Amino acid sequence: MGIAITLEQACAWLREQDDILILTHQNPDGDTLGSAFALYYALRALGKRVRVECSDEFPRKYRFMFPDYQPEAFEERFVVAADIADTQLFGKKLERYSGAVDLCIDHHPSNTFYAAQTYLVADAAATAEAICDVIDGLGVTLDLPMATCIYTGLSTDTGCFRFSNTTAKTLSTASRMVALGVDNAEINLQMFSHKTQSRIAIEREVYNTMEYHFGNRCAVIWMTRAMLEQAGADDAELEGVSAIPTQIEGVEVGVTLREKEGGYKVSLRTSRYINASEICARLGGGGHARAAGCFLAATLEEAKRQVLVLVKQAFDRYDAEQ
Amino acid sequence: MGIAITLEQACAWLREQDDILILTHQNPDGDTLGSAFALYYALRALGKRVRVECSDEFPRKYRFMFPDYQPEAFEERFVVAADIADTQLFGKKLERYSGAVDLCIDHHPSNTFYAAQTYLVADAAATAEAICDVIDGLGVTLDLPMATCIYTGLSTDTGCFRFSNTTAKTLSTASRMVALGVDNAEINLQMFSHKTQSRIAIEREVYNTMEYHFGNRCAVIWMTRAMLEQAGADDAELEGVSAIPTQIEGVEVGVTLREKEGGYKVSLRTSRYINASEICARLGGGGHARAAGCFLAATLEEAKRQVLVLVKQAFDRYDAEQ
Repeated sequence: MGIAITLEQACAWLREQDDILILTHQNPDGDTLGSAFALYYALRALGKRVRVECSDEFPRKYRFMFPDYQPEAFEERFVVAADIADTQLFGKKLERYSGAVDLCIDHHPSNTFYAAQTYLVADAAATAEAICDVIDGLGVTLDLPMATCIYTGLSTDTGCFRFSNTTAKTLSTASRMVALGVDNAEINLQMFSHKTQSRIAIEREVYNTMEYHFGNRCAVIWMTRAMLEQAGADDAELEGVSAIPTQIEGVEVGVTLREKEGGYKVSLRTSRYINASEICARLGGGGHARAAGCFLAATLEEAKRQVLVLVKQAFDRYDAEQ
Repeated sequence: MGIAITLEQACAWLREQDDILILTHQNPDGDTLGSAFALYYALRALGKRVRVECSDEFPRKYRFMFPDYQPEAFEERFVVAADIADTQLFGKKLERYSGAVDLCIDHHPSNTFYAAQTYLVADAAATAEAICDVIDGLGVTLDLPMATCIYTGLSTDTGCFRFSNTTAKTLSTASRMVALGVDNAEINLQMFSHKTQSRIAIEREVYNTMEYHFGNRCAVIWMTRAMLEQAGADDAELEGVSAIPTQIEGVEVGVTLREKEGGYKVSLRTSRYINASEICARLGGGGHARAAGCFLAATLEEAKRQVLVLVKQAFDRYDAEQ
């Protein structure tokens, strides 16, 4: 296990190094990429050779942060991990570096200290917040590309400053980035606001199916294959649909049924006190306490009935305990 | 028409006055109420008698900003309007004050200067941003109730710091409020994450009305009074509905028509390049470049037609310039 180091030590290390490889986690998001590329720009400003790598392709959605990026070929002499809490997150392509990280910069309290040295800021909303301090510590003047990366990391990891990880420092850092000219509205539009027409079409269909049960504490939605086809929605566009029922005030259990070959895939979400995983386990599935799933080889009505019987039992047990 | 005054003048006026009535606009939102109550607390801290009024009932959703508020009965000697751009927004109950406002504090560029004096900060994201400066200018130390009101005004008027009106100053002001202990995550949960059953019902209805025009660059939705009644949705639950069309990928202009006594209230939202305020001004309304409104004494079809003609012209002009 490696050691925890301070901001000053992290900056001192980076100042001394050259030919630096910066790693991002698999399924890259705005924070791992924003952090890595902000640091990339800063180290380049110091005249160093730097490269950023990821096990997955950089998603198109995030490329505005590094539109002209061309990886430079060189033999790395110092490896930095940005926003990677655990070696399991390196992904296949970067797996070979998991024991070879010289410096990890992260904000996850669950960081396993797999790197030789870790600069961990566990109360930072995003790794980008820590990277901003690193860039200041390196004596590099923040420019617009760096600020764009940092802002994107902050915004995406906080649900646009909405979640409880957003601190006064997160907001003041974001303020500083916007003062540097970051097009915050455009970034948020790209990151959060947009829904495709087919997503809107599927939401409409799904809203039309919504049923409430057990004193409105359970909401059920469903999607048939015909509905999905008609809306022209692909799997990526269905992301988050199963979160719709539990967004409703007073709904503890949200059930989403989606038609698949031979039956229905069930997604169960719960808000506070019903264990979704226990219910799905009884139907041959599994998952977490607040989000679980199973597959039922049944018609829509029969699948719904099977789930609702167990949801009712769970409510009855909960109510009896109150 | 009244005069525009500076922050210093606004503060000087407020310092001299007592028995102050603060007015909020009809269909009150987080900014008019947050601004009014932040100012209420600050003026009370200076030992003044103050009361806040609204033509509509204060929505339950916003009462966390003033949980113990009891209006004090007194004959007002100074009338302040908070976040009211135009006398049309006073509503029935407060109509009689429309010619009697001593000081208006606002951020709408479309403010009609109906008040004797207006402190207008047209580049502020929310009136609450201007109110924060007023409180500082009055020499009152910000406390948690004031900060909660100001944060709520900022957050609700910017879609949680997402829209293009969010500036470096908006974020630094929000940062200052969070540092004072504002429970930002809980406020945002209440303001943005939860939906009531009637809100879900109205979203479903609205999705069913959605039409696309001009190569899908314009999306139109509408709500009749019958739809709203059936969904059981109150005004507060309709907040943000008019943002739905511009959330759709590729949609530049979002039009929301809402049936009112004698016609339709039109909300126009634009994403990037069409000036919503210009279009609404031609229909007797006003607002901001990205969000504006007007009232049309017409049937649904006729109101839609009138708006779409102008939207088409705006697209044509834009396309010709490209």
